Amino acid sequence: MDTPRTKVTAIAGDGIGPEVMRATQRILEAGGARIEWENAIAGGEAFRKGIATGCPQETLDSIASTGLALKSPLETPVGFGEKSANVTLRKFFELYGNIRPVRELPGIRTPFSGRHIDMVIVRENVEDLYAGIEYEQTAGVAECLKLMSDPGCERILRLAYALARAEGRSKLACSTKANIMKMSEGTMKRVFERISGDYPGITPSHVIIDNCAHQLVIAPEQFDVVVTSNMNGDIISDLAAGLVGGLGIAPSSNLGDQAAMFEAVHGSAPQIAGKGLANPTALLLAAVMLLRHIGDFAAAGRIEQAVFVTLEEGRNLTGDIAAPGAGTGTDAYTDQVIANLGRISSMPSRDYQPVVMPHWADEVWHQAPAARELVGVDLFLESGEAPEALAASLQQSLSGSAFTLKMLSNRGTQVWPPAGGHSFLIDHFQARLLLPAPTPGDADGEIAELLGRLAGSHRWMHLEKLQRFDGRDAYAKAQGEG
Amino acid sequence: MDTPRTKVTAIAGDGIGPEVMRATQRILEAGGARIEWENAIAGGEAFRKGIATGCPQETLDSIASTGLALKSPLETPVGFGEKSANVTLRKFFELYGNIRPVRELPGIRTPFSGRHIDMVIVRENVEDLYAGIEYEQTAGVAECLKLMSDPGCERILRLAYALARAEGRSKLACSTKANIMKMSEGTMKRVFERISGDYPGITPSHVIIDNCAHQLVIAPEQFDVVVTSNMNGDIISDLAAGLVGGLGIAPSSNLGDQAAMFEAVHGSAPQIAGKGLANPTALLLAAVMLLRHIGDFAAAGRIEQAVFVTLEEGRNLTGDIAAPGAGTGTDAYTDQVIANLGRISSMPSRDYQPVVMPHWADEVWHQAPAARELVGVDLFLESGEAPEALAASLQQSLSGSAFTLKMLSNRGTQVWPPAGGHSFLIDHFQARLLLPAPTPGDADGEIAELLGRLAGSHRWMHLEKLQRFDGRDAYAKAQGEG
Repeated sequence: MDTPRTKVTAIAGDGIGPEVMRATQRILEAGGARIEWENAIAGGEAFRKGIATGCPQETLDSIASTGLALKSPLETPVGFGEKSANVTLRKFFELYGNIRPVRELPGIRTPFSGRHIDMVIVRENVEDLYAGIEYEQTAGVAECLKLMSDPGCERILRLAYALARAEGRSKLACSTKANIMKMSEGTMKRVFERISGDYPGITPSHVIIDNCAHQLVIAPEQFDVVVTSNMNGDIISDLAAGLVGGLGIAPSSNLGDQAAMFEAVHGSAPQIAGKGLANPTALLLAAVMLLRHIGDFAAAGRIEQAVFVTLEEGRNLTGDIAAPGAGTGTDAYTDQVIANLGRISSMPSRDYQPVVMPHWADEVWHQAPAARELVGVDLFLESGEAPEALAASLQQSLSGSAFTLKMLSNRGTQVWPPAGGHSFLIDHFQARLLLPAPTPGDADGEIAELLGRLAGSHRWMHLEKLQRFDGRDAYAKAQGEG
Repeated sequence: MDTPRTKVTAIAGDGIGPEVMRATQRILEAGGARIEWENAIAGGEAFRKGIATGCPQETLDSIASTGLALKSPLETPVGFGEKSANVTLRKFFELYGNIRPVRELPGIRTPFSGRHIDMVIVRENVEDLYAGIEYEQTAGVAECLKLMSDPGCERILRLAYALARAEGRSKLACSTKANIMKMSEGTMKRVFERISGDYPGITPSHVIIDNCAHQLVIAPEQFDVVVTSNMNGDIISDLAAGLVGGLGIAPSSNLGDQAAMFEAVHGSAPQIAGKGLANPTALLLAAVMLLRHIGDFAAAGRIEQAVFVTLEEGRNLTGDIAAPGAGTGTDAYTDQVIANLGRISSMPSRDYQPVVMPHWADEVWHQAPAARELVGVDLFLESGEAPEALAASLQQSLSGSAFTLKMLSNRGTQVWPPAGGHSFLIDHFQARLLLPAPTPGDADGEIAELLGRLAGSHRWMHLEKLQRFDGRDAYAKAQGEG
């Protein structure tokens, strides 16, 4: 009696996508994986049909129903859409965990060959600068909000720990820029310190992100699992892929509470599309990750070993990884991998267990502080005036209001009262306005009155409350602020 | 008759700082550099004297007067100060250009040896996330403002072009994340495209930052000059240093309109301080950059060649770069470099010309659009309610106001009206409130009225105006927003 098949949504994608998808599906079938494919479209084909997100509803419905997707590279054709179909899929299914295995492969020569690089980069995938909240605040000064949340960090950190456990790994390095961004990047470091005690047997460490990038080049073999925030992870995951042969053979998964999507990291390579030259290894290794995700460790190991044997022996490799002049095509490589099914390479597959995903309640995360106070507001102003003149006119407008001007900063450096030093100034000032004393209330009436009295005299574009939570200042001081 | 000496402020710094400074000063003197040192303190010694910035006024005055500093590593002792003395110095003198040469050195073996890596990373040094403007907006959700300005980008880009010219380099790659952060990182890309025509003979290219990190590992020899924003540059400059031997031998300069500071990239290495073991190469190569900055190309070349000869021959190297067991001390290495003055290595010094720094008027940069409109506001709310309930209560409060609720987003993804999909929600919502039509005015009265009517019913912490400049939207759409 056959094992029942698991339904997986297959997105053949653009460029070389259909070719590498066909090759992968052939190898999975030959390797004994019990998959039933639901074909769906996304990317170029969808954009050209007029679907602004690049993802038809039927595709979203299919993934919602299967909970699993294998996805080839997608294009965002020039002139279509503000957001890519890839981002749409990640956001729609809240795929918060991007998993990027980085392992030295047999037969793939790099400057680091022989050092046994074998790590996983875990990248937070939905918050941070990628929330995409941007404003052009003056005509020439743009702002992007970097948002990092306690639960957003906890989810990715617990996923990284769960993954380390499932793969039998003993070290987890959390990499942040908490030394400079003490609140935002600091959130990830603080949550890491808070929860690490829950995972005995896995040694935690913290490494500043620039040092992490440096260490990845100097001594990459020291890393086991690295977890980091979205923008940092974007950079170091591609860096790390380069250490073991590049994006062309790098698989990834994107994990969420309700779906998981597996994909190659490389692009759609339109210049070789349809020529039968594409290397399907990255998508195939992503499919191996999928098999482990659904618990089919036997098929996963069999296929992975067949790939390793093929790379090790170097017969019938595609042109991108073959010896010069010895490259063959997608079909020959696929046939070779299938022929090698059942063989064992010199590099063992790791011993994998199922990943136990952290569980989160399906409700709005909210944590009210026990005590709140309002200290004042930061008002961001557009002005071409020098700081002294701007301060004087602001003070005049504030006369009789609830607020007094504490300082002006320009791109984070205090420029009034003058702190000395040279600052090249732009037309974007932060005015820190304080109430006479911290108040337990919201002071919304006072703020409304403030805005009313500034109308016509000062042009502002952004207002932030200066809060205190449980007695701690919930805002940073400017450079030079006393 | 002696050439007059150039005054340079020398900050001996912490840990191994005084040792590497003495070694560097001895070699410069022996190499014929005509420098008069003004000794000044900063870092640990200053913090312990109670100077909260880590920089005494006399030190700032000395640099302001000489316009030149050579600086050893500084410490921020635990428990002292919110900001490091390094950051204070960079901000005080507006040292907006961080220059990081990355060149394969003779005798320093790395996985990339023989590939002739020879590039310069130019990092913007004062704006971006390093403005340090942060808020904890709810008790668990932190925001850092990423600010990028047209003139801030133009300054660093023109400096990178000037540097490329001065060093006879033919390619400049600008690296951004403009594909995701179209406004902030996009500013740098747009300015790059606008000004590149002013520099015939230098080939411009744009590379996405994650691909840049990947290419730096895959094919670093392709790069000549790379210019990028502050956070990106922090990461890739340390990555690139790792390609040629690490931070221990990496020099840097920090350039501004009124001062230039030269330093080693490495830290103060307290564990070996005072033992005579420190390697002064990084600070010495920074001093060579200083000599070129002041036009003493002869002494710079002489000293650089003596360093290259010493590394090439491998005699009397410090323990960090010597063959195992063959390491010597700071003094022996210093004597060896001095003994090699006048000799020529197998690796020629590049031909340098003076860097012609871009000139900027000393006034507030301001560029008013020809036409302005206000579309509405984004109000950021703290709420534990589900989106439907929050939208309903907001709509009730807005009834009769100038504004209507267009959408709610949570970390950048639209959650009301529901766009389908799964979103893990946090207590931090963006409410997009629109006026009936874009208005040429500021609508400050309407906004004040809005805040008054929300007082007591909705807790908000952040307000942004939705502006239009010259007919273009000056704000990004949320993921899923129509």
